[in-house]
Amino acid sequence: MAPSFTVGADFGTNSVRAVVADCADGRVVGTAVAEYASGERGVLLDPREPHLARQHPGDYLDGMREAVRGALAAAEARAGFERGRVIAIGTETTGSTPLPLDAAARPLALDPRFRRHLAAQAWLWKDHTGAAEAADITAAAERYAPEYLAPIGGRYSSEWFWSKIWRCLKAAPDVFAAAASWVELADYVPAALTGVARPAAIRRSVCAAGHKALYSEAWGGLPSAEFLARLDPRLAELRPRLFERAYPADRPAGRLSAEWAEALGLPAGIPVAMGAFDAHYGAVGAGITVGTLVKIIGTSTCDIAIASAREPLPDIPGICGIVNGSVMPGYYGIEAGQSAVGDLLAWWVERVGGGGDADHARLTAEAAKLAPGESGLLALDWNNGNRTILVDQRLTGLLLGQTLATTRAEVYRALVEATAFGARAIVDRLTEYRVPIERVVCCGGIAEKNALFMQIYADVLGHPMLIAGSPQTPALGGAIAAAVAAGAAAGGYDAFEAAQQRMTALEERRFMPDPQAHRVYDELYALYRQLHDAFGGVSRAADLGAVMKRLLEIRERQVGAGSAT
Amino acid sequence: MAPSFTVGADFGTNSVRAVVADCADGRVVGTAVAEYASGERGVLLDPREPHLARQHPGDYLDGMREAVRGALAAAEARAGFERGRVIAIGTETTGSTPLPLDAAARPLALDPRFRRHLAAQAWLWKDHTGAAEAADITAAAERYAPEYLAPIGGRYSSEWFWSKIWRCLKAAPDVFAAAASWVELADYVPAALTGVARPAAIRRSVCAAGHKALYSEAWGGLPSAEFLARLDPRLAELRPRLFERAYPADRPAGRLSAEWAEALGLPAGIPVAMGAFDAHYGAVGAGITVGTLVKIIGTSTCDIAIASAREPLPDIPGICGIVNGSVMPGYYGIEAGQSAVGDLLAWWVERVGGGGDADHARLTAEAAKLAPGESGLLALDWNNGNRTILVDQRLTGLLLGQTLATTRAEVYRALVEATAFGARAIVDRLTEYRVPIERVVCCGGIAEKNALFMQIYADVLGHPMLIAGSPQTPALGGAIAAAVAAGAAAGGYDAFEAAQQRMTALEERRFMPDPQAHRVYDELYALYRQLHDAFGGVSRAADLGAVMKRLLEIRERQVGAGSAT
Repeated sequence: MAPSFTVGADFGTNSVRAVVADCADGRVVGTAVAEYASGERGVLLDPREPHLARQHPGDYLDGMREAVRGALAAAEARAGFERGRVIAIGTETTGSTPLPLDAAARPLALDPRFRRHLAAQAWLWKDHTGAAEAADITAAAERYAPEYLAPIGGRYSSEWFWSKIWRCLKAAPDVFAAAASWVELADYVPAALTGVARPAAIRRSVCAAGHKALYSEAWGGLPSAEFLARLDPRLAELRPRLFERAYPADRPAGRLSAEWAEALGLPAGIPVAMGAFDAHYGAVGAGITVGTLVKIIGTSTCDIAIASAREPLPDIPGICGIVNGSVMPGYYGIEAGQSAVGDLLAWWVERVGGGGDADHARLTAEAAKLAPGESGLLALDWNNGNRTILVDQRLTGLLLGQTLATTRAEVYRALVEATAFGARAIVDRLTEYRVPIERVVCCGGIAEKNALFMQIYADVLGHPMLIAGSPQTPALGGAIAAAVAAGAAAGGYDAFEAAQQRMTALEERRFMPDPQAHRVYDELYALYRQLHDAFGGVSRAADLGAVMKRLLEIRERQVGAGSAT
Repeated sequence: MAPSFTVGADFGTNSVRAVVADCADGRVVGTAVAEYASGERGVLLDPREPHLARQHPGDYLDGMREAVRGALAAAEARAGFERGRVIAIGTETTGSTPLPLDAAARPLALDPRFRRHLAAQAWLWKDHTGAAEAADITAAAERYAPEYLAPIGGRYSSEWFWSKIWRCLKAAPDVFAAAASWVELADYVPAALTGVARPAAIRRSVCAAGHKALYSEAWGGLPSAEFLARLDPRLAELRPRLFERAYPADRPAGRLSAEWAEALGLPAGIPVAMGAFDAHYGAVGAGITVGTLVKIIGTSTCDIAIASAREPLPDIPGICGIVNGSVMPGYYGIEAGQSAVGDLLAWWVERVGGGGDADHARLTAEAAKLAPGESGLLALDWNNGNRTILVDQRLTGLLLGQTLATTRAEVYRALVEATAFGARAIVDRLTEYRVPIERVVCCGGIAEKNALFMQIYADVLGHPMLIAGSPQTPALGGAIAAAVAAGAAAGGYDAFEAAQQRMTALEERRFMPDPQAHRVYDELYALYRQLHDAFGGVSRAADLGAVMKRLLEIRERQVGAGSAT
């Protein structure tokens, strides 16, 4: 059979990346990146409002055109590729990034009247202007609809759909009034590609709806009109103009319009996969299975697991999102995260230490000589709050155990360990609620570059740490979703599992836990949990009088055991 | 009346400093410093034993000769001074610094047979080779003589008299066997100056005996032979060769021998004051009164207060030493201390930050722009354990409240504040036990150079922070003790109070508490105590879940209130 290909496009914070993947083995035969044109690296800012972060929707369309055309051109330079062999396209984006639409399902910001209106743009995931609205939504749900909060970990975020729409209603009522509907960027891109001409026809993904918009079949879709009216009657009026149902990626969003086929240089009518968030298709591209935790490690982390949807899954306290079908059809998608990982190390090395990349490398080398527990230090990884399992942004960092001899490298290692302990708290919580985790697949620069980081995680978690074979797992995940949207008959696959098995890979390097180091980290993790529970407000009668002494005992035992691990 | 002068000599860790003071007003008319000749800046070390720190007794005698002669020569360059007008000499030293003596009251180390034997030298205060012995003494006292521990805060230190002698017994039994007696350096110097020829004739100070040798009239002097025999029978055998009684500085140790009068260039037969520890005479030189806490601030601090001995003073939990007459006759001398102050800042700036003096200055300037609470940070000042009020060396540092934006200067300020909170814990404990503290007089380089440090202390303590007028308060205290030893009839004084009133002064600069800053620090101190009590093992059911949130609240209120204090 002739080879077939799919296109995956990843809409990031600063750029779009497109890949052309071979359906036989997932090999990327062409890739290209297009930076967004507007604002500061694609982000529209307001000097008077530091929490504001928007994007111009036109940038998405221009960027997609440029990136996909570039990836196709790169692919064409290789033997065996032809545009005619591209059988589908799949896209994924940041989120929650909602934008207002007009009655023709066009972004309001493309209308010259709203071209420069910040409230009419896409509200980027990291826009935090809706903090007060988020708090009010949480409070209202606690009182009137606590079931809404259970699957999102107990707290509605300022980064999410309703906080932003409500904020727009208050801060820019003219924009709110002009909007026929609102759509997540993840759903807008496939809608645009398929030529949808009215908001009601947009096929919404359960990924975006379930994780960010309080959507669940358990209560009949979006939050009730009654509940929304308690927030503001105009939100209740908006509800019927949004959507009734949301769907997993079990069938395509639609077919590529002639106009976009022309613009991208692809065959018209090929399937367009359902949209999803980058982390979710990223997990697909990393080869997620039941028993695998995918960690996308950057400044913070996004952690994705899945569990079979054949049996009901209980709510898991402190886990941000559990949505049936949000990663792959037939599985609960489970989302967690750590608020600061790369950022925490950057804080220590760059902000406090005034250092750069060379210092990261030097401190890593020095830290690698230490045995677990040898520094006597213990830290909490909360400099940016705790996303999972405490779901509390108003927590801060802690460092304990320092003496007059404590070095910068020792603190560096303690901070890496703290993030590993934070990762373990997530894994422990998942397994406690019968979501099995037996291995961890990591994506991101730290995982690829920092062997010490990976070994510490293996030793702390007691599980193998693996690295995704592709550095572009989100875009690859989009290409896999496209292959499934096309189906086996067209040269793709009929199921995600089959597509993943062929189209994903792992790096050969794997980091196995050292049993001796794992035992020491078990002791340190018990102390971490004492601090975690005491300062996180879980334990209200903590006995911490032995913590420093236990660390000194472990340290005295471990001194000189270094360079062994 | 013709002017009269006294000489004070301060035996420090690296050198002897001598001053010649005018009895009328305490003005120093001549000063000189002599470095010790042996070892590393006067300290004999053993590369195989990092806890060892010894000094050669010959260095003390040579150094004293050089320093006193130098100070007299300097004084002679001024009008109005004549050697014949020197009416007495007073000395003080580091401690506990015991040394073994032969039967003629000469240091064993001056005997050629022991000249190079490390165990025959003076065991410098910071020698920690007796750690195991200290623990065993504490354990034995807890079991058989708990009254011994009450006035020393509950724990016998490795730095003290018996730990060192017992260590010598175990590690160098030949030296122990050769020693006719042992003496604190503080008592040895006056004994040498007065020509004492047998150990039994040495007049021992209650300062050294009471603070370091478990001496108290309450149990008949030194620890009982029975108790010592439980440690080692040979210690019980040593007991009668030590001393029966110890004395306050209410009369001289003796009169200057002809030999030493010749060596120093002073009139023979003038009174030699009782010896004392540097901190104690330093407190005298700083003008200590009831209601004044004298803080000698260096790498660590020594804090001295006094209370009238007319009424009995209860034991004060966690206060290292309460000894009747140890600072001045008629008063309880009360000793406390903080294990790391200058050292804590040096750790942050130099060891962690790799910086130097310029960084201290830059960070101080940046930290001075912050308002109390503005950093959101809170630290425990325990990088070197806690001397007072927890008396626990096995405690370590803690830093809490950091975000991704936390700067090096913010941590610097938080560490200064932590030491101020530690100082407040001492002041609070004293006042709780009816030792009034209304003002603090500081000595040491930090007090003189760092206005931010002093202002933070004033704001945290809510008391004026004053600076001793002399940068050489210990030596000046020795000169004051000498003036009292001489008596009013000889041109000195009959009482310490009268001598102090005339011979001590304060710098004009004083740091007054800012009421608004004090209120904020009251809130922060309450949080500090929560951490202090939880990690110090005082509170076994701590509720710390609100600590980080309270810090954030205070921070949000205080942001921008900076540069006001």
